Amino acid sequence: LERKKGVKVHVLHRAEKLLPQQKTAVIRDLNTGRIAEELYDKLVISTGAEPIVPPGINTSGSRVFTLRGLSSAQSLKRFIRESSPKEALIVGGGYIGLEMAGALAASGIHTTIVEFMPRVIPAMEEEISEMVSRELESHGIDIITGVGVEKVAESSGGKVEAILTNGNCLNTDIVLVAIGVKPRTQLAAEAGLELGVKGAIKVNRQQRTSLPDIWAGGDCAEAYHRLLQRNTYVPLALTANRQGRIIGESVAGRDSVFPGILGTAVSKVFDLTVARTGLGEKEAQSYGYKTNKVVATSRSHPAYYPGSQEIQTVLVLEQGSSRLLGVQMVGKEGVAQRIDVWATALTAGFSLSQIHDLDLAYAPPFSTVWGPVLLASRIAMKSE
Amino acid sequence: LERKKGVKVHVLHRAEKLLPQQKTAVIRDLNTGRIAEELYDKLVISTGAEPIVPPGINTSGSRVFTLRGLSSAQSLKRFIRESSPKEALIVGGGYIGLEMAGALAASGIHTTIVEFMPRVIPAMEEEISEMVSRELESHGIDIITGVGVEKVAESSGGKVEAILTNGNCLNTDIVLVAIGVKPRTQLAAEAGLELGVKGAIKVNRQQRTSLPDIWAGGDCAEAYHRLLQRNTYVPLALTANRQGRIIGESVAGRDSVFPGILGTAVSKVFDLTVARTGLGEKEAQSYGYKTNKVVATSRSHPAYYPGSQEIQTVLVLEQGSSRLLGVQMVGKEGVAQRIDVWATALTAGFSLSQIHDLDLAYAPPFSTVWGPVLLASRIAMKSE
Repeated sequence: LERKKGVKVHVLHRAEKLLPQQKTAVIRDLNTGRIAEELYDKLVISTGAEPIVPPGINTSGSRVFTLRGLSSAQSLKRFIRESSPKEALIVGGGYIGLEMAGALAASGIHTTIVEFMPRVIPAMEEEISEMVSRELESHGIDIITGVGVEKVAESSGGKVEAILTNGNCLNTDIVLVAIGVKPRTQLAAEAGLELGVKGAIKVNRQQRTSLPDIWAGGDCAEAYHRLLQRNTYVPLALTANRQGRIIGESVAGRDSVFPGILGTAVSKVFDLTVARTGLGEKEAQSYGYKTNKVVATSRSHPAYYPGSQEIQTVLVLEQGSSRLLGVQMVGKEGVAQRIDVWATALTAGFSLSQIHDLDLAYAPPFSTVWGPVLLASRIAMKSE
Repeated sequence: LERKKGVKVHVLHRAEKLLPQQKTAVIRDLNTGRIAEELYDKLVISTGAEPIVPPGINTSGSRVFTLRGLSSAQSLKRFIRESSPKEALIVGGGYIGLEMAGALAASGIHTTIVEFMPRVIPAMEEEISEMVSRELESHGIDIITGVGVEKVAESSGGKVEAILTNGNCLNTDIVLVAIGVKPRTQLAAEAGLELGVKGAIKVNRQQRTSLPDIWAGGDCAEAYHRLLQRNTYVPLALTANRQGRIIGESVAGRDSVFPGILGTAVSKVFDLTVARTGLGEKEAQSYGYKTNKVVATSRSHPAYYPGSQEIQTVLVLEQGSSRLLGVQMVGKEGVAQRIDVWATALTAGFSLSQIHDLDLAYAPPFSTVWGPVLLASRIAMKSE
């Protein structure tokens, strides 16, 4: 971390305040506590996101965890190694909660998930959630849905007590809070930058904020959605990385534009792969679309070749036009890259029949002759 | 196999002759030898393909095999079970030859592949062939390239002798001839139907032949190539299946049109997946394109997550325009469906930068943040 190519690097410094009028950042040396002012020509804000913690949950003790970055994962791992907890409660049944359920189960810890919404992985359609629930239960995970966590407090005996909104009380050894993240925007807001969707820093497609010479990107900023043609907030790694490149080019004077996201995501829940691209049905409806939903069951490859697995594909279509709005898939094999085929088709604006016409690869170890993508598009065409 | 919905089914009958003027097919009952004439309104020819056998190879004995349909695979399997051959020679190092090498090796048979071209799997680029060769050799397969087979003859001692074009002589227990297939067109040609590319039955995009009320599809017929915008001959399962549907619709009076192929194919060679879509470099050049080739090395997913494998991607681009003409990939994981992403992008006519802009799925078990498709497109953009 040296000064190379004219880049100053202040490690272990925290930006305390921004003064956009004076083009100045006030930074604190975390070792000495000393405050310094740094003049800038151009400023990039990439403060990331932080876990949302409900008011009744106190995370200051040693047995209640959140996840942000490598160090918090290391703390949790160290605690598990040293204190050998037997029981864990995960608050939140989204991607992170479910991936952590897999990790905790692998450490031999009996895990309960409490999800406020009526089903786990609420970012996915009901048909997908059902398969995910069955997978979790088959691995011994207890699931409580439609119930919130009112209060979490560590008791003196090395246990944690969680009081649920239905009045029930759970005693456990550790609690992991994973109900989602929010953009870290205090610095930006105090500097007078406009905030936008879900409180993320408002940006245009060059990742410029509402004030001159200040850019923002990653989990603290909005992301342009190419299907909705407006900004959304979907904090994911590729988006952050891509926005960083756009900012770099824009700061350097190029007219680069963030191409936009489709909300493409994939997650592993024990042996299941869960993936999505585009809009979910409720989400599409919230943006004014009238929707149809089509569910297609197929196999990852022919049943006569070993290892064949069922794949469920859910298509969200615009009523009338049959325009493809979103796709979700779940299965134990061949899901992660097939969602990329759908994302590519969605980007191309292909109709169902154009998707059905694609010349995709077939060989028995990898696909049926008419593979899951082609079959789902055919089933959707028949439902028109 | 009954007469249902007005469909007459003649099993164990062979079409001996077509009389298009009289709209008549002459068919022979293979049980009784009896000849009958069948009047038709509309005729579909789907006679398939058959293995090419070089003149010096006699396949009439018990130890020299070709592959066409399930029964020939069953014959070979039965022979292996009953006669326990120790050594096999495969003539031809294409998809089928290499897949059979895997199957024979799994039966404990030491296998030698003789390929006339300078390298195995000549339908793929050199960079891919090299990785395939190493994979074959690591599984104990002997490879002889740049040499043909002059003569194959069974000797009295239960062995087969193969004389190569370089004068060498190989003694082996069984020989499998897999140098490719040719369309079965005798019936069509004798009836006066025009033949086209590589001797396949000439068809338009409705799969109509040169004579009225006769359609042809599958491995006996040409296939329209959507990138070349002309007919080619690439006998593969999805093409045959899709042409069958188009024929069905066309015969029934619908104006269905075969959308065309991209030459997308995938094959398993031991633990490697080999896949392609679009044009190879030589192939593109043979159609008049000036080409650039870009090779990108990436990983199926991050190295820190278990099971990460190297993926090689070869892009064939048009010189000057950088238009994508074809993609080939090889690796042990995450190849089969990624070629489908490329096929979809190729169908959409996406530029490299449009491909680099795709919002594809990332999670450590499945992909790097910038996965193999995005990385290869970036490397190709930098080479512009």
